[in-house]
Amino acid sequence: MDLDRDQLSINAIRVLSMDAVQQANSGHPGAPMGLAATAYTLWTRHLSFDAKNPEWANRDRFVLSNGHASMLLYSLLHLSGFEAMTMEQIKNFRQWGSLTPGHPEAELTPGVEVTTGPLGQGFATSVGLAIAEAQLAERFDNTIDHFTYVICSDGDLMEGVSHEAASLAGHLGLGKLVVLYDDNAITIDGTTDISFTEDVLARFEAYGWHTSRVADGNDVEALDAAIEVAKEESDKPSLIAVRTIIGFGSPNKANTSSSHGSPLGDDEIALSRKELEWPHEERFFIPEEAYAPFHEASDRGAKQRAGWEKSLEAYASSNPDKAAELTRRLAGELPAGWKDNLPKFAPDAKGMATRASGGKVVAALYKALPELTGGSADLAGSNKTLHKDFGIFDRNKRDAQNLHFGVREFAMAAAANGICLHGGSRGFGATFLVFSDYMRPALRLAALMHEPQLMVFTHDSIGLGEDGPTHQPVEHVMSLRMMPNYWVLRPGDANEVRECWEAAIERTDGPSGLVLTRQNVPTFDRDALGTRGDATRGGYILAEAPDAKPQVILIGTGSEVSLCMEAWEQLNEAGISTRVVSIPCWELFEAQDASWREEVLPAAVTARVSAEAGVTFGWERYIGANGVAIGLDRFGASAPYEVLYEQFGITTDAIVAAAKNLV
Amino acid sequence: MDLDRDQLSINAIRVLSMDAVQQANSGHPGAPMGLAATAYTLWTRHLSFDAKNPEWANRDRFVLSNGHASMLLYSLLHLSGFEAMTMEQIKNFRQWGSLTPGHPEAELTPGVEVTTGPLGQGFATSVGLAIAEAQLAERFDNTIDHFTYVICSDGDLMEGVSHEAASLAGHLGLGKLVVLYDDNAITIDGTTDISFTEDVLARFEAYGWHTSRVADGNDVEALDAAIEVAKEESDKPSLIAVRTIIGFGSPNKANTSSSHGSPLGDDEIALSRKELEWPHEERFFIPEEAYAPFHEASDRGAKQRAGWEKSLEAYASSNPDKAAELTRRLAGELPAGWKDNLPKFAPDAKGMATRASGGKVVAALYKALPELTGGSADLAGSNKTLHKDFGIFDRNKRDAQNLHFGVREFAMAAAANGICLHGGSRGFGATFLVFSDYMRPALRLAALMHEPQLMVFTHDSIGLGEDGPTHQPVEHVMSLRMMPNYWVLRPGDANEVRECWEAAIERTDGPSGLVLTRQNVPTFDRDALGTRGDATRGGYILAEAPDAKPQVILIGTGSEVSLCMEAWEQLNEAGISTRVVSIPCWELFEAQDASWREEVLPAAVTARVSAEAGVTFGWERYIGANGVAIGLDRFGASAPYEVLYEQFGITTDAIVAAAKNLV
Repeated sequence: MDLDRDQLSINAIRVLSMDAVQQANSGHPGAPMGLAATAYTLWTRHLSFDAKNPEWANRDRFVLSNGHASMLLYSLLHLSGFEAMTMEQIKNFRQWGSLTPGHPEAELTPGVEVTTGPLGQGFATSVGLAIAEAQLAERFDNTIDHFTYVICSDGDLMEGVSHEAASLAGHLGLGKLVVLYDDNAITIDGTTDISFTEDVLARFEAYGWHTSRVADGNDVEALDAAIEVAKEESDKPSLIAVRTIIGFGSPNKANTSSSHGSPLGDDEIALSRKELEWPHEERFFIPEEAYAPFHEASDRGAKQRAGWEKSLEAYASSNPDKAAELTRRLAGELPAGWKDNLPKFAPDAKGMATRASGGKVVAALYKALPELTGGSADLAGSNKTLHKDFGIFDRNKRDAQNLHFGVREFAMAAAANGICLHGGSRGFGATFLVFSDYMRPALRLAALMHEPQLMVFTHDSIGLGEDGPTHQPVEHVMSLRMMPNYWVLRPGDANEVRECWEAAIERTDGPSGLVLTRQNVPTFDRDALGTRGDATRGGYILAEAPDAKPQVILIGTGSEVSLCMEAWEQLNEAGISTRVVSIPCWELFEAQDASWREEVLPAAVTARVSAEAGVTFGWERYIGANGVAIGLDRFGASAPYEVLYEQFGITTDAIVAAAKNLV
Repeated sequence: MDLDRDQLSINAIRVLSMDAVQQANSGHPGAPMGLAATAYTLWTRHLSFDAKNPEWANRDRFVLSNGHASMLLYSLLHLSGFEAMTMEQIKNFRQWGSLTPGHPEAELTPGVEVTTGPLGQGFATSVGLAIAEAQLAERFDNTIDHFTYVICSDGDLMEGVSHEAASLAGHLGLGKLVVLYDDNAITIDGTTDISFTEDVLARFEAYGWHTSRVADGNDVEALDAAIEVAKEESDKPSLIAVRTIIGFGSPNKANTSSSHGSPLGDDEIALSRKELEWPHEERFFIPEEAYAPFHEASDRGAKQRAGWEKSLEAYASSNPDKAAELTRRLAGELPAGWKDNLPKFAPDAKGMATRASGGKVVAALYKALPELTGGSADLAGSNKTLHKDFGIFDRNKRDAQNLHFGVREFAMAAAANGICLHGGSRGFGATFLVFSDYMRPALRLAALMHEPQLMVFTHDSIGLGEDGPTHQPVEHVMSLRMMPNYWVLRPGDANEVRECWEAAIERTDGPSGLVLTRQNVPTFDRDALGTRGDATRGGYILAEAPDAKPQVILIGTGSEVSLCMEAWEQLNEAGISTRVVSIPCWELFEAQDASWREEVLPAAVTARVSAEAGVTFGWERYIGANGVAIGLDRFGASAPYEVLYEQFGITTDAIVAAAKNLV
């Protein structure tokens, strides 16, 4: 009987989930138990995957946005035969060194597409996956052609980022995005009606989504049919609200928030086994028959993969250039000579804003790297990231590198993560630096996932002037430096901009933020200055003391490097041997070998002055106990930027005075 | 003729806006010109205000969520006779020291209710204003009874925080919230259809809002009627979509994004004066007649204020206790003896989690401070902030102190700002510390506005254990310390929790975050330890060396103070004179006088070890060049917390070894 067969496998998910949570003595059994039939239907009847080849490029993507239901995903991976997901791993749920952490981690566990847990972001990241799929499909003649499936919870849909992403997905008409909403009417704090009474489906229809409802989340046929209809909807993303029962199978805890985030307890687990008619008392025992439907699905996927690989060979014959590009991009390799045509900037005392030189570099990068895909959150003109020659991605044009994200910073960053995670494309976004706060949770996930997401952050200090303190980042540069595995790059002139972009592009294991000015800065004459090193080393000697025996070192980043240079001239003229060090990227500088760091910042030279138009907190690291940090430990103000620099004492005079004081 | 009279005043807004932006040579003329009639209708026909008494408690609140349209608000304030908003201020738009910064700042300019500019937040903050109004209205028998009006833009409605806030407002049935949506179909990057094609009104209906449309944003009568209908809708918040023309009046730039964010230029301004039939060529000249409708509105408001003050006197006769409470709360004063019944905790080696002691303190605070109003973003059980005795605010019960915010951290923080800004209530929120990232922009605005918003951040480190790195804050404590005017309080035991809460409650000029553990920590025996000072001083000497001549100082915060205490015992036993300093709040410690700071951390004792389960970056400030920082410069992992502390080397042994190494 098929029904029994389905039921056995569905209950296997429930049993594994409750057993693993119990063994860990922590975790979330309710959602996996409620969602078991939904996930089973999706995975065995729709999802195209090959458990033996989790990285197959044309697999359907599956995102569990409510990451706390991680045992659902681990159960699916185990039952489907993903080799890494042994029963031993399930037994080690939430333990040190396991592949089964409390929330799924893409960087850790084969078969996990997106690191989830922080609610809303799995949903939003899936929009990026679907964007990348649509883009690659059109560019490579449907060689890439798959669905993106998401399971999400009410919590995901309450989070603002899901609104931004849903609105964007509806606008873009991402028809191959199918979201199953776990409509279980229970949140951690109780029933959803204590805080969440909106009409979710009507809202998604307003976004331009196809919506439907499955009244019984245990009805495999109804689930199957709803997914089928959603897949046929080619112009609209789909949201299927599935009415599930949290903790289904637990006689006393089903449909209550007590099954949400705690183990059921041994007694309740025994009762649940009875309720589910699960004959095996032994913990973690799963009969072979329960694996069968999943293995069949994976075998089907393996055939699809084999067929896809053949079609790729045929494509390589008929379209060798495109096939080579696709292969390169899927491998994550940069094209030979990609740096050759990046702009080099001649010395220029007037110079240009680093957002302007950044715009020139981005234009060249778009050309050199067709995988570069992104845009701005409605500040393209200010960020200088829009280059229309490379097409604008919308519902009528998919083979395009520019995206209009709208005023949706957080969804932009999450989508950029999804574009990177898909493979084949490289996602980037752009906005003012102050709005990095709006997307910070997605920057953090990029860092945690080791995804090389890119962000252009312009208007990077009080140097933006009149817009005032709401728009002036003060703490942002330093606070982003706090984030593990995040690179902050704040170049000081146009050539540093190019070098910082090079370093960011070459980075494969984490995200980078380019921090750029609104106001002009000079382009330095490195030949004349005896520059040693460059921005690709994170920090370097921009200008040496005439006698190469510095008494004092001035350390700057970004627009304040030029203040250091002015001070350098005055100090050397005054007979104080002075060196200028530019450290556009602290993380990269700290990754250099000790000899370079000592060469740049010799321990013996303790007279040091730093200049950065932001909080001074943190500069202790480079200036030591004796040093002076020139900066701004308060919010900014609205006025022309020259006035602000003067009022806040971030000036050449201040640097000169501090240096003289020290020596 | 009334129409001409209206038109003159409406055009006065347009003229002032284009002149001021031109004079500043930066700013946003388009939105004020497009919204002039909308704002005129609201201010002259509906808004209850008294320009001579901008702080009148029962005034209607007006929030300009699209803060870049600041010249609209400054024009309204000037025309209405707000004394501070002289023509001189208008002429100094965006200049140093003026009351007319690029974006409106509540802390700076009388009549500005909310600091806006970062999009979406004005809208979300207004939900907090409306919550406070509803709460005070029910508690004080409609002594407080006013509307909250908002003007917002498409950008506001694209931002996720507005979704969260709109869903919450619909759920709560905040009928006295009326939002006018500037539906001008233009964004910075072009027409809205490049990124924003959803059906906004249908979406708001799905949230449970009343919606309507005004087809011509220059039609004063239609605007008037729509606002009237919205005011009559008592159970639902209202969204009125007003089709405006950005830059209306400018013959060549109206209805284009070029009027959005740049001055029109002298020639276009001359042409616009003609188009608007404005006879006065002189910049900034406004004829007396243009002021009249605004002055009449203010005079009407002044009468309402006088009437309200009389009714308050009557209320004081009939309900002296309640009236006294209202008066106290509106004055922002704490009740006498409010601290008397806060729990004191006996020494206890086993102790309790600081979230648990925090929960006990919050319960006592709810009782002592009826103005304390807030709750959790669906983590009330974990945050220990729900105390049902004090009522749950919902559409049927307004006189209540608990709020269920749902999984909406950002809207929670913005609403908490609104509750504080209203006056009479004190807003707080609660979630896991890692999700402070989701609300960071609203914490920043609280700091900028000097609003004493409160946040409870539990699960404050790897100490949360099995949930893993997505949920383990690592960089958050330090990165929040970077934010100007934000207080981070990370108490080390139950009594520090009480003291930190006291300091946070007494703070009037900025926000505070209480950072609390999931895991147990001991309650220290201060009498036995010879403790000097306490947490209200930010940092203090928890345990002195037996000879009071410390060779080494151990500095900890939060749960790591107990590791320092264990190390203290071992080190003193080993004959190394050791002091333990706890610094739960760096900001507060740094505000102490120099002698206290020197007493706690004598400059002469350079052998220092810090312990904090987070990034070590930043600890250079207290440990100096020789010190050792014990912490975690990477993301965490999923495992029981004891395992994590051991694996990451944040242990008593590590502290002891570091200290021995130093001396």
